[in-house]
Amino acid sequence: MLNFKSFLTYGTALAVTAPSMAQKAAPVKQSTPNIIIILMDDMGYGDIGRTGANQYETPNLDRLAAQGMQFTWFYCPQAVSSASRAGLLTGCYPNRIGISGALMPWAEVGINPEETTIAEMLKTKGYYNGIIGKWHLGHHQKFLPLQHGFDEYFGLPYSNDMWPVDYDGVPIRLKDTTSNKMKYPPLPLIEGNTKVGEILTLQDQDKLTTLYTERAVKFIEKNKNRPFFLYIAHSMVHVPLGVSDKFRGKSRQGMFGDVMMEVDWSVGEVMKALERNGLEKNTLIIFTSDNGPWLNFGSHAGNTGGLREGKGTSWEGGQRVPCIMKWPGVIPAGTICNKLASSIDILPTLAAITGAQLPDKKIDGVNILPLMRGDKEACPRHEFLYYYQQNALEAVQIDYWKLILPHSGRTYRGLKPGSDGWPGPTGTEKIESPQLYDLRRDPGEWYDVSQWYPEKVKELMELVERARADLGDDLTKSPGTGRRKPGTL
Amino acid sequence: MLNFKSFLTYGTALAVTAPSMAQKAAPVKQSTPNIIIILMDDMGYGDIGRTGANQYETPNLDRLAAQGMQFTWFYCPQAVSSASRAGLLTGCYPNRIGISGALMPWAEVGINPEETTIAEMLKTKGYYNGIIGKWHLGHHQKFLPLQHGFDEYFGLPYSNDMWPVDYDGVPIRLKDTTSNKMKYPPLPLIEGNTKVGEILTLQDQDKLTTLYTERAVKFIEKNKNRPFFLYIAHSMVHVPLGVSDKFRGKSRQGMFGDVMMEVDWSVGEVMKALERNGLEKNTLIIFTSDNGPWLNFGSHAGNTGGLREGKGTSWEGGQRVPCIMKWPGVIPAGTICNKLASSIDILPTLAAITGAQLPDKKIDGVNILPLMRGDKEACPRHEFLYYYQQNALEAVQIDYWKLILPHSGRTYRGLKPGSDGWPGPTGTEKIESPQLYDLRRDPGEWYDVSQWYPEKVKELMELVERARADLGDDLTKSPGTGRRKPGTL
Repeated sequence: MLNFKSFLTYGTALAVTAPSMAQKAAPVKQSTPNIIIILMDDMGYGDIGRTGANQYETPNLDRLAAQGMQFTWFYCPQAVSSASRAGLLTGCYPNRIGISGALMPWAEVGINPEETTIAEMLKTKGYYNGIIGKWHLGHHQKFLPLQHGFDEYFGLPYSNDMWPVDYDGVPIRLKDTTSNKMKYPPLPLIEGNTKVGEILTLQDQDKLTTLYTERAVKFIEKNKNRPFFLYIAHSMVHVPLGVSDKFRGKSRQGMFGDVMMEVDWSVGEVMKALERNGLEKNTLIIFTSDNGPWLNFGSHAGNTGGLREGKGTSWEGGQRVPCIMKWPGVIPAGTICNKLASSIDILPTLAAITGAQLPDKKIDGVNILPLMRGDKEACPRHEFLYYYQQNALEAVQIDYWKLILPHSGRTYRGLKPGSDGWPGPTGTEKIESPQLYDLRRDPGEWYDVSQWYPEKVKELMELVERARADLGDDLTKSPGTGRRKPGTL
Repeated sequence: MLNFKSFLTYGTALAVTAPSMAQKAAPVKQSTPNIIIILMDDMGYGDIGRTGANQYETPNLDRLAAQGMQFTWFYCPQAVSSASRAGLLTGCYPNRIGISGALMPWAEVGINPEETTIAEMLKTKGYYNGIIGKWHLGHHQKFLPLQHGFDEYFGLPYSNDMWPVDYDGVPIRLKDTTSNKMKYPPLPLIEGNTKVGEILTLQDQDKLTTLYTERAVKFIEKNKNRPFFLYIAHSMVHVPLGVSDKFRGKSRQGMFGDVMMEVDWSVGEVMKALERNGLEKNTLIIFTSDNGPWLNFGSHAGNTGGLREGKGTSWEGGQRVPCIMKWPGVIPAGTICNKLASSIDILPTLAAITGAQLPDKKIDGVNILPLMRGDKEACPRHEFLYYYQQNALEAVQIDYWKLILPHSGRTYRGLKPGSDGWPGPTGTEKIESPQLYDLRRDPGEWYDVSQWYPEKVKELMELVERARADLGDDLTKSPGTGRRKPGTL
């Protein structure tokens, strides 16, 4: 088996080889935009400059926003990795398509071949599709990106902490422990359908952002003459944090800030590659995060900008994420969109942009192109469902009213936060009765106003019943008729 | 007595009369920038586009930020009107100069003539100084702006809700009530040192933003050939909310959004007036708020973007406020500053900019010009003190660590919010022991980490002792040797 270091040379050679499964690109209009989605891992709403990054700067993200549109009410589909990515790539609530939580290395399910991904949809319009980074929709070959519309894949099949290495970087086999980490196989690095290396050490993690960025720049250069879709799914800022020497110690707040600075640099490199290759004007860039910060990692976690709780919860800190989009000539520069939107809306929006047909199965996303164009009257999304884990309906939202349903959920309060890469514990908070929040006045979800707005609770409960009929709810054993199955081996 | 309507004509005639107390402007270098401070009333951290305005847009503030610098960690000196304004205009913690809370119409104190205001300081460099809007540093003649360095004054002497009118706009004398509002005299409109009208009805309140804006535009036009300092202290978005017909019903969230849209328009009118008169490049604009939102007014209050509590508290929602500065050629366009800063830093910064001498008495502000220039290494402010009311030291901060001291403070939680201009109640929260927050990770002040960082608590308690020795603390009966007295009749 190659180790990570030897792969670096091997990988460079591979990069110029056309992937065997790539379909020949059909001719398309030159006006069809290139599409780049940059998805961060565990980056919180407050981690970018405009919303509260502290002790480090994000000049490239600031520039991206200045040239495009900042979305301030943008939600991930579920506050955990696999589910969120499933929603992004299919335009569905993740539980609709049977993907829940975070798939573990021993999972035997993955994205169903019957589902349509953004890559498959864009392929019908002649796009050449690449993914660089974290996949996390199943790691057996039938689930890997090349079987789901991508022409190239280079990255990790799942999270960068799913490895047999302790939080201090020591291989777990060298410790006398019964840690869960004993269960993990070596963390593979994959090219196409092949394992081409392993991430063995924290020093390997340090290289990931640079490596992904170099690959992304090469992808852009190589494909400048045909329409492409590039999905850059960074492993950072998920723990274990890694940062290259050029950014280590550069922020004033320690490792997390250093990593954010490198990620910001990476966005800048992508922007520069587009500019250098004359693609800037005809490329739509979408920058967002899979979920909020993993707060029990303390000094190695991000921040929500004040929003309640974080990753793994249906509170705003778990699901409201940064989002910036840039597309010169379509998205008015330097604008802000404060309408409700979600990454499940990206697929139908790209369908509208490219003229591609929507998937033949029901999806949940709506076309937000009117918002991107700056249409002040448009409001394509009025409702949002907060499902968690297998299929628990934890909250629903209509416009700016959010109803939290009775459930037991993760809390980060009252517990010692971790440091230096080690996690602190998480707790459980039991919600006994429905809580109502007016997010317009109270984005922090500090003030439960349910007792004073019974008619609003009733209206939201009607949406709950509709959701339960369609997608079910494990909390009430509602089955739901609209659920589909994940792919199985 | 003139009523408001008749004043409108009279006031226009007055506006072209040179105020009798204006000193002749000394010749100055043309490079001396004009200075405009726009101070909002009760506008929260989340009320502008970038940080969470919802259901309305703030395109002019967005443009101001795109052309200048957004400050994301900017604090008012105290979370209540008079105190905050005293700090802004003198560069001192307000309790240092004996100004606390909100001065009521029966107050017999005001700003001490011995203190130096920004206006007095700038006058030594030949500036012509105007204030339009809310003063609130004493309303007897000796305390009014013309006696404190301003050459022109047009506006209200205190808050727009200090009037004998009920929340529904009905004069309180027409009601069978023992309301506190019986105590208020008619709300005067003042020009120079003279009462020239009265704000009698909600319809009068509707005109204030337009009136202030027209005055501001005229001031700019009239003084385009000499260096000026213009302090626009809006009465909005303080209750009772007022909005002109051209913005009524224009937002999607009701009256508060409409008012925000008009305020944003006002900022745009000021920017346009500068551009039209060739002053844009040589004018420093500073936009901020006196304190956070008055949350018990519910639908007539703003939002904190998720920060804890609001006006009248030492939590982040009370004191962290929006701030945008623009000064072409000095402040790099489209940048963000996330270093600790406060409106008490404005006076010493303007001293550094203009070469004016600092006041001869001790001040608390620091020069933040290096931050405005974009100097990444600069960090002029490391400490901040949160005093409230008469002289209660409620919290202290060193860099991103904030220690909340034991005290009883206002809370908005668990209480029915008001609507349609009527307030809901406020409650009291008792803090029993010191609480420590890492604002870098937790700007929402959700996670008290005091028990895990005793050495950090100790370091902050040393600052507490220094503060008590200098400024005192009513909570512990510490007198403080550095306190000065307010002006008296």
